[in-house]
Amino acid sequence: MEKLSIFKVGGNVMEDSALLTLFVKKIAMFPGLKLLVHGGGKMASEMMWRMGIEPQMVGGRRITNAETLQVVTMVYAGWANKTLVALLQAQGCNALGLSGADGGWIKARKRSVKDIDYGFAGDIDSQNVNIDLLRHLLQMNCTPVCCAITHDGNGQLLNTNADTIAAVVAVAAAQHYEVSLVYCFEKPGVLTDVSDDSSVIAELGYAHYETLKASGAIAHGMIPKLDNAFYALQNGVKSVRIQKAEAINTHSGTSLLFSR
Amino acid sequence: MEKLSIFKVGGNVMEDSALLTLFVKKIAMFPGLKLLVHGGGKMASEMMWRMGIEPQMVGGRRITNAETLQVVTMVYAGWANKTLVALLQAQGCNALGLSGADGGWIKARKRSVKDIDYGFAGDIDSQNVNIDLLRHLLQMNCTPVCCAITHDGNGQLLNTNADTIAAVVAVAAAQHYEVSLVYCFEKPGVLTDVSDDSSVIAELGYAHYETLKASGAIAHGMIPKLDNAFYALQNGVKSVRIQKAEAINTHSGTSLLFSR
Repeated sequence: MEKLSIFKVGGNVMEDSALLTLFVKKIAMFPGLKLLVHGGGKMASEMMWRMGIEPQMVGGRRITNAETLQVVTMVYAGWANKTLVALLQAQGCNALGLSGADGGWIKARKRSVKDIDYGFAGDIDSQNVNIDLLRHLLQMNCTPVCCAITHDGNGQLLNTNADTIAAVVAVAAAQHYEVSLVYCFEKPGVLTDVSDDSSVIAELGYAHYETLKASGAIAHGMIPKLDNAFYALQNGVKSVRIQKAEAINTHSGTSLLFSR
Repeated sequence: MEKLSIFKVGGNVMEDSALLTLFVKKIAMFPGLKLLVHGGGKMASEMMWRMGIEPQMVGGRRITNAETLQVVTMVYAGWANKTLVALLQAQGCNALGLSGADGGWIKARKRSVKDIDYGFAGDIDSQNVNIDLLRHLLQMNCTPVCCAITHDGNGQLLNTNADTIAAVVAVAAAQHYEVSLVYCFEKPGVLTDVSDDSSVIAELGYAHYETLKASGAIAHGMIPKLDNAFYALQNGVKSVRIQKAEAINTHSGTSLLFSR
């Protein structure tokens, strides 16, 4: 099977122009087939404040009412996506931006209301990723640049977590490609001590992760990211790594292990 | 040659949800290969007011400083584009959104400063349209949905007139397809009396257009639109029509004539 590298890059890279320039160059130079998934949550929150809309978050997840959906669609699919695409094109990488609606790329289900109504939030699974579109675009030498907006197939746009999109696309693509998934992160990897950047765990197995979670060493925003990362590893993705955006051409960071 | 229908739709359709729903259904049902170009200028101006930025226009053209570029990219490539794409997908039309940066679709030159500095405004010609991308997407049964954002190939996004994009893409595509170009307009066609919707000119030749322009019967925003329309007709596009968005499946409106 041909190799495909999938990179998830967060808002921290998008908002630091020096880091963004460096990252874009490294992506453009990265050999082989590749796909990029990007966030932009901090940028969206700043835009909301500017428009007089107060961002609503519950447990790190955004409550997406109609006007929030408009802002995240503008920021993710508009400014963040086209900025990345234009910068990659300038480096000779034939980037092409996609929301989940484009070409029927990713169909989501509006999250059902249990305790909390997340509004226009979309949940996804690997069955509803259009792998034919991916194969065609990669054959055309395109590098898809995917934002965190999906649709329900009935005309409704939905806000979907970018870490989840990266994992679900990686799992879907693993049927046809040998997929490496890299979560680019502001820290050098998964840390045993969040205040000590030298405490990177080089290799992290699921049992070890469970222990660190139970002890509280891994907490907050890192948990959904690692849950997505292990889901990918346990569903056909060849390798999953968590590292700094500027280090994607090195073997630094944390590699997840299938067992141990 | 295979037929390709190119539709340009303005902001008035995007902002009227009943009209938008009707238009999207008619586009989805329209037979054969098709491509859509959309504006969104009024929506962008409203967003700017909301963000406390005063829109600057000279002769109907927007002065695009850095923060205006961000807003138009958010509105055109983000909200307007993805709304259209999701609605078309819901009607079974495999829409895929494109800015000029995506897949190297349209490369522009930043407009040079003469009397007026238009800022990040991009001028385009038919030599810099990526027809291979168009052919691949049409072969994939995709309907490209093109917004009025381009790039310079060096990482800079640029704001480009949507009427011009429609004409220039039509001319570029005319090398490979029998192209029909339709400008969807809020009026039923070109009128001899702007206050009388029944004064539609059914067929308009270039000499007649020049006469109407000289007499002042055709003025303001209609002139650049018709200049684009005649440019297309005079450069290989098979037919050019100006009509209401809700009438694209009829032979109403104004047809431009190559001679007379």
